[in-house]
Amino acid sequence: MPELRKDPILGRWIIISQERGKRPSDFLIPDKARTMGGFCPLCPGNEHTTPHEVLVYGRDGGAPADSPGWKLRVVPNKFPALIIEGNLDKQAEGLYDRMNGIGAHEVIIDTPDHNTRFVDLPPDEIQLSFAAYQSRIRDLSQDRRFNYVLVFKNYGCAAGASLEHSHTQLIALPVLPRMTDAELAGALSYFRYKDRCIYCDIIRQELQQNIRVVCQNEHFVTLTPFAPRSPFELWILPKEHSSSYIDLPESRLSSLAAIFSESMRRLDGCIPDVSYNFLLHTQPLRSEALEHYHWHFEILPALTSIAGFERGTGFYINPMPPEQSCACLKAVHL
Amino acid sequence: MPELRKDPILGRWIIISQERGKRPSDFLIPDKARTMGGFCPLCPGNEHTTPHEVLVYGRDGGAPADSPGWKLRVVPNKFPALIIEGNLDKQAEGLYDRMNGIGAHEVIIDTPDHNTRFVDLPPDEIQLSFAAYQSRIRDLSQDRRFNYVLVFKNYGCAAGASLEHSHTQLIALPVLPRMTDAELAGALSYFRYKDRCIYCDIIRQELQQNIRVVCQNEHFVTLTPFAPRSPFELWILPKEHSSSYIDLPESRLSSLAAIFSESMRRLDGCIPDVSYNFLLHTQPLRSEALEHYHWHFEILPALTSIAGFERGTGFYINPMPPEQSCACLKAVHL
Repeated sequence: MPELRKDPILGRWIIISQERGKRPSDFLIPDKARTMGGFCPLCPGNEHTTPHEVLVYGRDGGAPADSPGWKLRVVPNKFPALIIEGNLDKQAEGLYDRMNGIGAHEVIIDTPDHNTRFVDLPPDEIQLSFAAYQSRIRDLSQDRRFNYVLVFKNYGCAAGASLEHSHTQLIALPVLPRMTDAELAGALSYFRYKDRCIYCDIIRQELQQNIRVVCQNEHFVTLTPFAPRSPFELWILPKEHSSSYIDLPESRLSSLAAIFSESMRRLDGCIPDVSYNFLLHTQPLRSEALEHYHWHFEILPALTSIAGFERGTGFYINPMPPEQSCACLKAVHL
Repeated sequence: MPELRKDPILGRWIIISQERGKRPSDFLIPDKARTMGGFCPLCPGNEHTTPHEVLVYGRDGGAPADSPGWKLRVVPNKFPALIIEGNLDKQAEGLYDRMNGIGAHEVIIDTPDHNTRFVDLPPDEIQLSFAAYQSRIRDLSQDRRFNYVLVFKNYGCAAGASLEHSHTQLIALPVLPRMTDAELAGALSYFRYKDRCIYCDIIRQELQQNIRVVCQNEHFVTLTPFAPRSPFELWILPKEHSSSYIDLPESRLSSLAAIFSESMRRLDGCIPDVSYNFLLHTQPLRSEALEHYHWHFEILPALTSIAGFERGTGFYINPMPPEQSCACLKAVHL
């Protein structure tokens, strides 16, 4: 059973997810066990090698579950960081706090095609992934043990990807992550002072300054943020205030897919096939709509190394101002 | 001029340190320019290739500055993230905050011997490094522009090291890093509740439980912390309460060097030549002694990959419980 432990000073949560039988030297090449040589468990025809699907799009109604013919498929992670069965069993150990590592860890298989990168998918296929995130978050929010769902993608080795086939991951957590907590607290503090959403103010200022706006459409805008952690960091925000991704109407998913696709293709044009993570920032589960928070995506290219300074301070050193990243991204011919 | 920018939501500071003439693709292999082929700027005989030394130990009094014969040498970083000359010039840009990238970035050359790793230095040579950290922090604390000095070591490529020759780095900052701020706040919150230092309580509990104590001597103790970010993470703490590293009496430096050396050799015994960062956690400059804070070193092996989940949440997934790491470390024959 994995375990959740809290750092008593920082409030940082750690998952102790023990892989049995490992010796110290086995940690030197993390996740090597998951690459599995040339075999791809996410490809059509190999559905029986994953846990049973929890969501599928595009397969004929009459076809059996876990069979080919799908356009998108969501399955539990075969090597989950947290496990779905059990109760939290919160306990103290002296001054420390721990609980069982209960959670959901799912894999959204974006496409049946092993060789198509997410950035190369047509917007109407990308849209399926965005719809799947909504569907899974809605479903998992019914489980009262969970407080937050994190949706994220690791693309490329430098960003921690361990499988080549395009996929997104989702982890449902019993506790609010420290970074989400800090983001909510920072936004609330601004709201109390100004009585306005800080993200709405950022969008207003950015559209007016127009030096960090990469692209926009009717409903969304893509920015290089003022204080980015790396060159070409991108934020994609809805222009209309909303704190919850699952409140985005289905009619807007195609608009989101369009700007996401354009933003990713611009990034790919600047740094071909760069490794990246993207992360969905949305409000905690079962929260009422928040006036101070604003859901968005953050795309973080893996271009700067994380060394002692970054680890010790939370500072990042970025060799390129976002205004320059923005100019490069805008200059890409699509 | 580098620039400091603050994320308006998280309060996270970013250093924009522009390296001129770089194209987007140049960011793919960070720091490659600094490896300089086979030439080592930190070796004796090459003193003229570094900026002028600001501290030296072991060279005869009559010998000229920047000449060989030293045991330890501190020089400004030739490629500093922040620069020492200028004023902060704090400014707003609409709702954003920025200031000039003023700070000190120094390199402590631990030893003249290119091929000796820090872990292989005899304790009396390691002690010189610890003395140098104190001396440089004391000196930099007289500059009122600086609020914090971070001392850290990157060893090995996976930990972000760009030079082979054993060295430690130091960055003096005009602002308090977010992580330090969070650590101080967490410790203060505990102190207000309990009227005790949380680190003193941790030491007491750990010595009593004795399942995460790797080694100790009269003045110091090395622990695998309860909620570690990676296998074999180590904390080295003074047993006697003290919030400031520079208040450590000179007579205790040998005791610190002894336990540090033993801890590092145990780590090296478990995972030979592992990449790691170590970080000195101490109070802000010119602060009075704090009842709630406790200086210490944290040693963080670079064994777990930082992917989207970690970046998005501040969560870490650690495949080995600290009790098991501790047992491995204690079993090493020295």
